[in-house]
Amino acid sequence: MNKIDNIEGVIEQITQKVAQRLQQATVSTKKESVVSEKIDYKNTSQFFGKKTSTTFQHSKNVVEKKVENSVDSYTLARMIDHTLLKPNATQQQLAKVCQEAIQYNFATVCVNSSNIPFVASLLQGSAVLPIAVIGFPLGAASTEAKVFEAKEAIRAGAREIDMVINIGALKSKNYSLVYQDILAVVEASKPYKVKVILEMSELNHDEKVIACVLSKTAKAAFVKTSTGFSSGGATVEDIALMRAIVGKDMEVKASGGVNTREIAEKMIAAGANRIGTSSGVSIVTGVKAESKGY
Amino acid sequence: MNKIDNIEGVIEQITQKVAQRLQQATVSTKKESVVSEKIDYKNTSQFFGKKTSTTFQHSKNVVEKKVENSVDSYTLARMIDHTLLKPNATQQQLAKVCQEAIQYNFATVCVNSSNIPFVASLLQGSAVLPIAVIGFPLGAASTEAKVFEAKEAIRAGAREIDMVINIGALKSKNYSLVYQDILAVVEASKPYKVKVILEMSELNHDEKVIACVLSKTAKAAFVKTSTGFSSGGATVEDIALMRAIVGKDMEVKASGGVNTREIAEKMIAAGANRIGTSSGVSIVTGVKAESKGY
Repeated sequence: MNKIDNIEGVIEQITQKVAQRLQQATVSTKKESVVSEKIDYKNTSQFFGKKTSTTFQHSKNVVEKKVENSVDSYTLARMIDHTLLKPNATQQQLAKVCQEAIQYNFATVCVNSSNIPFVASLLQGSAVLPIAVIGFPLGAASTEAKVFEAKEAIRAGAREIDMVINIGALKSKNYSLVYQDILAVVEASKPYKVKVILEMSELNHDEKVIACVLSKTAKAAFVKTSTGFSSGGATVEDIALMRAIVGKDMEVKASGGVNTREIAEKMIAAGANRIGTSSGVSIVTGVKAESKGY
Repeated sequence: MNKIDNIEGVIEQITQKVAQRLQQATVSTKKESVVSEKIDYKNTSQFFGKKTSTTFQHSKNVVEKKVENSVDSYTLARMIDHTLLKPNATQQQLAKVCQEAIQYNFATVCVNSSNIPFVASLLQGSAVLPIAVIGFPLGAASTEAKVFEAKEAIRAGAREIDMVINIGALKSKNYSLVYQDILAVVEASKPYKVKVILEMSELNHDEKVIACVLSKTAKAAFVKTSTGFSSGGATVEDIALMRAIVGKDMEVKASGGVNTREIAEKMIAAGANRIGTSSGVSIVTGVKAESKGY
């Protein structure tokens, strides 16, 4: 496991500086222009290596492009994690979700870990990957339990892992634990991608920044907004903030409440490159689905 | 692991008979007289061994006693699982809960598994046991993940295990999976008690009956009503139903919404012998607590 000496100190430093810079900026609340130009991208970028100044430029451009240029349906479909996480999901409902994912060329099917063997068997031979959620939805399982659940899910056929960050440890400023928790799951899940669900609605601004920094430092592939089981889902502002912090060499997933094409396109314009939703079919076809819930 | 051949068949049989008998009965919805006398206890009892006819008699008496004879505060305190399961619980909040549990002689402190090492260290030397919740709150983690999480929690100091049943498998009538899932956690947690959280608000009548039967068959110590994270909590009717099904050689825990002494005493009168609540202090002292939430 990669060890960073004095992670508390490093994180404290990063956080103070990033938070200071981001907070100084007046983050616009206007829907289509979320990242304020007052953010000093150049200064922030030093924390993320050389690529990030172009990153932020890119991110800013995307945000400012407005939502005029909509994404074509095939491209959009390939960004969708078709999601069924209700604890009372039946095999019949899971089978329907898999069939739809194959039919509409969605990127993945995202389910609870006990459903991975069934879903993986249905998706076998297709381009659709099974995702297992880990430590879901509270993120409060022990690191060892998350690591084991991830390994077991991969053994059973999962090809992406969406883990929930330890929110309580983050709020207790126990950044070592938060970092080691993510790092352990990332290492256990290799070579597959790990998304870190930050549950943005539960975090204050500083915690959002720190969560993104820790996820990036631990080499997760994605930061992801929400579980869909808490008080709020993805917002355009949060997506823009996440993209601004992680830069372009990391992916951003919008999840929770993304149930129309319009919302999905706004998330993409703000910096998301993956959409977690149970409304994938209606998003790509325009036909309203009967099923509700995440 | 104990294997029962043709569990589907056995469960189907048990279920049909129990459900038939219980459904024939007009279950009273009156608050203090929940178990209808029309239930044919004698016929039902054959499924649970010899002790159960006295059990149901006992249960019925308790229910019909009304809530006149209140429990003394010490006895009540020793029935309380002092609970903090919010994902954003900080170490400070966890420490407060442990201090209160020791001060008021509660039975246990119930937390997410990542908090067990901290809580166990604080409770060491006291009579208060640490409980870890497992597969919480959806119950949709794989059996292997639940088993590992339970073992790891016990290694870290947990002395009771509250696991969530696989609700989706129950709704898919995959009773083998539901049974094996409970059994595996029960065996992995020996010699410590396992409670099976049934999430009663999500279940129809037949599913409630089957869930109790499977938990008892798998030798769990308790059935427990709710996670506190779903659409509903404990009801007097559910407690009476659970007690009627499991008999007296199994324990019943009421959790979710039990936030006053009056409600706690009604649950106990209906058959509960453990109360899961974040309002333990106000329940035993009568002083309203500031903190909210489960």
